[in-house]
Amino acid sequence: MTQTAVIAGVGPGLGASLARKFVDEGCQVGLFARSADYLEELANALGDDALGVPTDVTDPDAVEAGFREVRDAFGSVDILVNHASGGSWTGLQGISPDQFERAWRTSAYGSLLCSQEAVDDMLAADGGTIIFTGATSAVRGRGGALGFSSAKFAVRGMAESMARELGPEGIHVAHVVIDGQIETPEVRELQPDRDEDEYLDPDAIADSYWHLVTQDRSAWTLELDVRPHVEEF
Amino acid sequence: MTQTAVIAGVGPGLGASLARKFVDEGCQVGLFARSADYLEELANALGDDALGVPTDVTDPDAVEAGFREVRDAFGSVDILVNHASGGSWTGLQGISPDQFERAWRTSAYGSLLCSQEAVDDMLAADGGTIIFTGATSAVRGRGGALGFSSAKFAVRGMAESMARELGPEGIHVAHVVIDGQIETPEVRELQPDRDEDEYLDPDAIADSYWHLVTQDRSAWTLELDVRPHVEEF
Amino acid sequence: MTQTAVIAGVGPGLGASLARKFVDEGCQVGLFARSADYLEELANALGDDALGVPTDVTDPDAVEAGFREVRDAFGSVDILVNHASGGSWTGLQGISPDQFERAWRTSAYGSLLCSQEAVDDMLAADGGTIIFTGATSAVRGRGGALGFSSAKFAVRGMAESMARELGPEGIHVAHVVIDGQIETPEVRELQPDRDEDEYLDPDAIADSYWHLVTQDRSAWTLELDVRPHVEEF
Amino acid sequence: MTQTAVIAGVGPGLGASLARKFVDEGCQVGLFARSADYLEELANALGDDALGVPTDVTDPDAVEAGFREVRDAFGSVDILVNHASGGSWTGLQGISPDQFERAWRTSAYGSLLCSQEAVDDMLAADGGTIIFTGATSAVRGRGGALGFSSAKFAVRGMAESMARELGPEGIHVAHVVIDGQIETPEVRELQPDRDEDEYLDPDAIADSYWHLVTQDRSAWTLELDVRPHVEEF
Repeated sequence: MTQTAVIAGVGPGLGASLARKFVDEGCQVGLFARSADYLEELANALGDDALGVPTDVTDPDAVEAGFREVRDAFGSVDILVNHASGGSWTGLQGISPDQFERAWRTSAYGSLLCSQEAVDDMLAADGGTIIFTGATSAVRGRGGALGFSSAKFAVRGMAESMARELGPEGIHVAHVVIDGQIETPEVRELQPDRDEDEYLDPDAIADSYWHLVTQDRSAWTLELDVRPHVEEF
Repeated sequence: MTQTAVIAGVGPGLGASLARKFVDEGCQVGLFARSADYLEELANALGDDALGVPTDVTDPDAVEAGFREVRDAFGSVDILVNHASGGSWTGLQGISPDQFERAWRTSAYGSLLCSQEAVDDMLAADGGTIIFTGATSAVRGRGGALGFSSAKFAVRGMAESMARELGPEGIHVAHVVIDGQIETPEVRELQPDRDEDEYLDPDAIADSYWHLVTQDRSAWTLELDVRPHVEEF
Repeated sequence: MTQTAVIAGVGPGLGASLARKFVDEGCQVGLFARSADYLEELANALGDDALGVPTDVTDPDAVEAGFREVRDAFGSVDILVNHASGGSWTGLQGISPDQFERAWRTSAYGSLLCSQEAVDDMLAADGGTIIFTGATSAVRGRGGALGFSSAKFAVRGMAESMARELGPEGIHVAHVVIDGQIETPEVRELQPDRDEDEYLDPDAIADSYWHLVTQDRSAWTLELDVRPHVEEF
Repeated sequence: MTQTAVIAGVGPGLGASLARKFVDEGCQVGLFARSADYLEELANALGDDALGVPTDVTDPDAVEAGFREVRDAFGSVDILVNHASGGSWTGLQGISPDQFERAWRTSAYGSLLCSQEAVDDMLAADGGTIIFTGATSAVRGRGGALGFSSAKFAVRGMAESMARELGPEGIHVAHVVIDGQIETPEVRELQPDRDEDEYLDPDAIADSYWHLVTQDRSAWTLELDVRPHVEEF
């Protein structure tokens, strides 16, 4: 049976790899991002099973409309990836309250809005899967990255709480800790001489997201981490 | 030398015990809370070394004014306790986006505002101490308490990030995980038959907060937990 | 290319499922356990790609001989699962020093012996995978299970240290936290009326072990947890 | 009332500072270590309230005899610090099984023997306090320090299990994570030019151990960490 996925917060890195992987595995995928241009380009490359829906995930009405559009095209949502993230790399001495709030709003508040929409579908159907994209700063607050650390912690706390609430309802909630730098076209351009081994390949990460989707509910994973084999940690 | 402390988010439980302990140890204490009546009652009981300042910690202007008032009365701030907290006990299926936001705003955003004010003083002086009041839900997201868990995680991530940024500047940032129910007049009234052993005595917790304040900077604690000896965990 | 795996500590539960999964995926598998009878039965059921080698994993000479036998049959070892475990469910007030030692020797010391043998092969070849079977008591020491908790912690510390040492050498070290009760014939017989949903299906766990083996080295997982969807945690 | 303490594993660093602090606070202290010479020197410096008992903490008979000697001199034991530690700084590729075992035996097995002796006294009396000295490698396995990491994890697992078992019996079990290098005469000699700020002052750590001893049982701490204010972590 075809599954419908929403990836909230797509860009030319892990988001694109997730979209491709999910389509390859037979899903139909709704893609949320603020940039309409990139979404269209990606959706075109993926074909009929992908739909780009320009959506500000921090706006309740936009999120509701985005989910409606995906449902109209592909049916009820089975899989959600809360992938949107943000946060300037400044510490307490540099961050403005607005920057601090924005980091939280994109990562945590936006995930709440998308999760509530998706869970409605999943409860009415036969369960589903919600995956949160985390970072090392979700488990160790990083000095000089106050907004990002606090927001990523907030997301992890949300994931854990939701896993405990929704597991018995047949909804698998998982949190992936990404430790290191993901290889994207942009990153490679900025660091042309860096050893390829030092990056996370987004396609490889996507394999682990897909594994989470396929897990039998008798052995669900709440959290896994991924990092390059040479990463110091 | 007299130290000046601000306790942000005072109520008739741990907040009051902290105020009393700090005054007993020779501090002058500014007390922030929204309820003017309770603040006045507590400040009166504590005497000349305590000042109640009705303050909404989520309002930047109010926080700035509150700190100004404390500085005018007692001088530059040496100790801050970020103690305000909130959050309805509902899960994803019950919480409104506004409730979710309110939990974060009181716990995390308010702590940012107070910390930025306090750190200005501490950097200009000889360092200082900032203590965050945490909870078990800051380290294990609780099912059915989504807003509270996510907000408490956000606070813990903030504390860790600030500890790494500000330690080298001579500012001690610590996070206290309170595991269990604090004994307050209100709680005892609701559960008159419960064994006293099952509660945390707020005066006992205050002793550990004070210990954090007195630690030599060669051996600072980032995190400690406290719980009743009979607590299951 | 055919991979050679050693599963150290096989019994009629997860060990048997791992053996079957690995053979199904094209591996040749050496099985270590103290009970020759069960090993023979399992190896016969699995066919020519499985070899039972009665081995006391806490005996350095026996471990060396066991690995030699596997290498003679299937060649250099690519995959090791440190699966042996033990420990009486008693606390400090009940455990004898010998019981405490035995729990550690089976879980931690035996894993060291097997890992040193396997790593020799992996370094000489093109890397490999070592997976440790952990438990909830590896991350939260359980009251009344002192030997088991301490031994499982020791194993987790070993896994983390080895992951950091050996990752750059191309050896993937991972630790799986199994949270809950695995369904085995014995367990079902003891609890005939318990809901099947409350058990971990060992075949489902084996899928996640295999996923770890197949991960690309740009995105290796150090730790993942697995539990039944209804498990309270 | 005078309390009797045993410090198991005393040397010229934190062990000596603990002994001095406990005596200063009115305790009578039994000191265990293998080196009779150093023990005598320290005990002499501390006066009549200290007793050096040359003891191999990994030998059950020696531990029993050592506790008997302390009881004969000072009465039933109220406080135990499990402070012995060891472990060569080698990884899987360098460590011998004997070295791996020795690290565990000194840290974990020795702590079991001492704890069982002490808990007998504490249960017969009015409770007590057991503190374990931990390290960063007890919470993050360090690459290249396999024996030490695994042993320190084993100790932490033991502490957590014992805390849950013994808390309700009135025995406070705590674990202190020491993050960084403790200033000892030997260390200063080896690194004469290093900034003093980079070390943990053992007297400052001892203050936090003593705070744990004095905590009211309504707010006991299981774990706290200590590190220099400039430590990167």
